[in-house]
Amino acid sequence: MDFAGRFEKWLRCIDTALIAALPPENRRPAVLHKAMRYSVLSGGKRLRPLLCLAAADAVGGEVRQALGPAVAVELFHSYTLVHDDLPCMDNDDFRRGRPTVHRVFGEANALLAGDALQALAFEVLAGARPADRLVLELAHAAGSTGVVGGQVEDLAASSGKVDEATVKYIHQHKTADLFGAAVRMGALVGGARAADLKALTEYARCLGLAFQIVDDVLDGASGKPAELSCLSVYDAETARRKARRLRDRALASLKRFPVRRRVALEDMVRFAVDREH
Amino acid sequence: MDFAGRFEKWLRCIDTALIAALPPENRRPAVLHKAMRYSVLSGGKRLRPLLCLAAADAVGGEVRQALGPAVAVELFHSYTLVHDDLPCMDNDDFRRGRPTVHRVFGEANALLAGDALQALAFEVLAGARPADRLVLELAHAAGSTGVVGGQVEDLAASSGKVDEATVKYIHQHKTADLFGAAVRMGALVGGARAADLKALTEYARCLGLAFQIVDDVLDGASGKPAELSCLSVYDAETARRKARRLRDRALASLKRFPVRRRVALEDMVRFAVDREH
Repeated sequence: MDFAGRFEKWLRCIDTALIAALPPENRRPAVLHKAMRYSVLSGGKRLRPLLCLAAADAVGGEVRQALGPAVAVELFHSYTLVHDDLPCMDNDDFRRGRPTVHRVFGEANALLAGDALQALAFEVLAGARPADRLVLELAHAAGSTGVVGGQVEDLAASSGKVDEATVKYIHQHKTADLFGAAVRMGALVGGARAADLKALTEYARCLGLAFQIVDDVLDGASGKPAELSCLSVYDAETARRKARRLRDRALASLKRFPVRRRVALEDMVRFAVDREH
Repeated sequence: MDFAGRFEKWLRCIDTALIAALPPENRRPAVLHKAMRYSVLSGGKRLRPLLCLAAADAVGGEVRQALGPAVAVELFHSYTLVHDDLPCMDNDDFRRGRPTVHRVFGEANALLAGDALQALAFEVLAGARPADRLVLELAHAAGSTGVVGGQVEDLAASSGKVDEATVKYIHQHKTADLFGAAVRMGALVGGARAADLKALTEYARCLGLAFQIVDDVLDGASGKPAELSCLSVYDAETARRKARRLRDRALASLKRFPVRRRVALEDMVRFAVDREH
């Protein structure tokens, strides 16, 4: 499936909004703003902001109104990648084929660029409505029992034997929690009712878990150095089967929405599970 | 002046609220929650949350309603200290007489504890009113043209010659911006009118600059290893004189408030300037 083609218009809106939200490179301190733009404007699938827009559309809201939260979730995601790549974490030299932020701008500037991106994500959310609920969604997913909690357990697990429950905890918090925030923020901006929000929350949970399982399978097949992976508790065939089951559950949870309003979310979960790289 | 005694009741409220806002140590991931509590509950003057409560009081608001923003600003401040102490930044082994977070919990956990504290600060703000304005205040002060911007310029300056404008930029953004957010958030919760907000903003700016100048003087006198300091552009006597002038300007900006409602803010700026350690 031509993922970028399907979502071309939305992707253009997202990139335009990201460029506008980031401080210009010549504003003081220039090195910091260069590092922030380098990390955010480096390609990437923009899956989380697309989910945010698609969720607003699914509940009958205005896609344009979801651009604020969409930008916020991508700025937030970029911060987690910058910190993840640091020497004290995964110590990665490359991301998306380019040297990582700390390789280009130094470790301290990378740390601080990540910190500033997190703050900027919340600054953008403060300008969207309903600000209090949106901030709560992102902050909760971002915190010690969300993304950061997943990262801590991921680090701890990579130095020992893991069981299936630990893998699931890490997939849920490191990955699915932010998918959940993206979808729920889009739905909130779109004026979702409680039942819609519940269905979309289940969709995002299944999508996030499936996405991470497939990531592990693809990393395993490409011989990428083993971090924590579900392949340490079951084989690739079992993993693919689990991912397909999660995909079907995600698709089922979308049935309450009109066909033309759910097709984007359906495409995204199919892409996440059926992709080969 | 017995600073702690004067504010004993407020300090007790702040510490109780901080303890309640932090996740319990036995919640997963325990190591992360231990690190967060270790960094926040380690003494400290609680100057920023006190400023927040005092500002709410000054404009005739309920002090109790300002506890949310007060907690948020202290959680935020703790995160900046944890990241500041990291090896790639100041590489400090001790803070307030105890080993720094990364010395006790490891570098990755310190990085992640700081990240989670920033998220928690915004989560707390989402529960206060008016959430949108409060989040905007903290996020703006926190970002690339605020605290983080000050830190970047501080790092850059410590490896070269600095001029007075650079020192002022660093003092303003690394220190005074967060004092400003603390005071403005308290004032907003207290229902401040525009003219009150303007006066308190000027108060916080003068207090923040004076506080940092005195910090530099005290560090210089104690022979603490030289980081960027205003003493590299003027001598200690000049610095003390500048601090007293800023104190007087801060005091003057409080004149619009009733005496009994401004005494706490007056005490704080006198403490900041006249302290000997």
